[in-house]
Amino acid sequence: MNNYTFLVCYDGSRYEGWQRQTRTAETVQGKLESAFEKLTGEKGQVIGAGRTDAGVHAWGQRANIHLSAELSLPEAEEEINRLLPDDIGISGLRPADERFHARFSAVRKTYRYRIRTGSRKNVFERRYVWQLGEKLDVSAMKAGAVLLEGTHDYTSFCGNKHMKKSAVRTVEQIELTEKDGVLQLDFTGDGFLQNMVRILVGTLVEIGEGKRKAEELPDVLAAGNRARAGFTAPPQGLCLLRVDYGKEWML
Amino acid sequence: MNNYTFLVCYDGSRYEGWQRQTRTAETVQGKLESAFEKLTGEKGQVIGAGRTDAGVHAWGQRANIHLSAELSLPEAEEEINRLLPDDIGISGLRPADERFHARFSAVRKTYRYRIRTGSRKNVFERRYVWQLGEKLDVSAMKAGAVLLEGTHDYTSFCGNKHMKKSAVRTVEQIELTEKDGVLQLDFTGDGFLQNMVRILVGTLVEIGEGKRKAEELPDVLAAGNRARAGFTAPPQGLCLLRVDYGKEWML
Repeated sequence: MNNYTFLVCYDGSRYEGWQRQTRTAETVQGKLESAFEKLTGEKGQVIGAGRTDAGVHAWGQRANIHLSAELSLPEAEEEINRLLPDDIGISGLRPADERFHARFSAVRKTYRYRIRTGSRKNVFERRYVWQLGEKLDVSAMKAGAVLLEGTHDYTSFCGNKHMKKSAVRTVEQIELTEKDGVLQLDFTGDGFLQNMVRILVGTLVEIGEGKRKAEELPDVLAAGNRARAGFTAPPQGLCLLRVDYGKEWML
Repeated sequence: MNNYTFLVCYDGSRYEGWQRQTRTAETVQGKLESAFEKLTGEKGQVIGAGRTDAGVHAWGQRANIHLSAELSLPEAEEEINRLLPDDIGISGLRPADERFHARFSAVRKTYRYRIRTGSRKNVFERRYVWQLGEKLDVSAMKAGAVLLEGTHDYTSFCGNKHMKKSAVRTVEQIELTEKDGVLQLDFTGDGFLQNMVRILVGTLVEIGEGKRKAEELPDVLAAGNRARAGFTAPPQGLCLLRVDYGKEWML
């Protein structure tokens, strides 16, 4: 079997998330698998680094697929892009080591969440930036972000109530930058639980609105209770920016 | 009567252009007039600087409306934005001189047309950038652009076959810049005929593809014949960027 890897960029607005579900659900994984099947006649499984939620976007999602077919490169990439709908695109399609697994081999992921804090309605970014339209106390949010970094059990920030595996993750950095009325929050870590970035954002926004204090965050983490953290920020502000792998994969 | 002016930003993807038409047509002017009517109870006419085509966007369209109502500012702007669909937004709503007319008082307009020339499919800009995906000879296009500038009868570049008024316009500047796989063409002039920017773009693209020579453009202009110019580039790449007025209007 050949193992191929590629980057995927998608506007998640109209999808029920990354992961293939029922036959009728529109998912990014499903669209990719159909395109590869049309090209090669093979039903392969596309593995993605991050199983993004419904409505979440990706700029640099990494994926792989095992196929017995030998693809002609780079023509196959053009062909796949033609077969895909116009809100999904791939790039950098190439052979990978047979053991490479887009999810299990990943060592770091970066998600970006964008919030419009300025009052001017920007119609062009409405699908990709959460249109909050209110000023936030960014200094307080930065103070909160530092307390959410590190290696912790993030059960309080997990949207899956039936999570059985370890909820310990390392969030290396949460970086906030505000420019032209848009607040951008970049989360880098070794992995994120279901809805975790959106719950971290919701909690930080509550701090930015003065509804809770940064200092209470260590208690929220320690509680291991979803009810103690903030709300889940809406999906459209979130984008999987990049995924990093060890250099042994030579990606 | 009070005369109010404001800037309008819209994603034209789902509209049949700026201008109100039949009762059922979805138009930007129609949506704005409905919003003002809901706010004030008055049926006013919204006048726009540029009557953009179906599918064309605007970043800085200028408009005005005469109303007997006195609007509370800036609350009225927020209210109008709430009443508008999320693909139309206004800003800078304020009183104007009673003689101010967004179209007739305009002295200069700038339209931007964007073309993706790089091969990487960019799903986030697909509604706002024409996805050509092929390299163009930008130097040849720049040589052509210079020949299209100036004061000319632009009949060859007019999409309206029944144009009765003068087709003489002054195009001050056509500026081409290419960055990150996107070619941007900025057109500044005192006014533009129907489809004119899109036909200028289509003609320049044919030069960029090597299908015609820049040197033939003076003949194309002199012919006064639509059939001599290039194709009409698709609407989604076009955006009305800004409209300028004499300083007597103090906008």
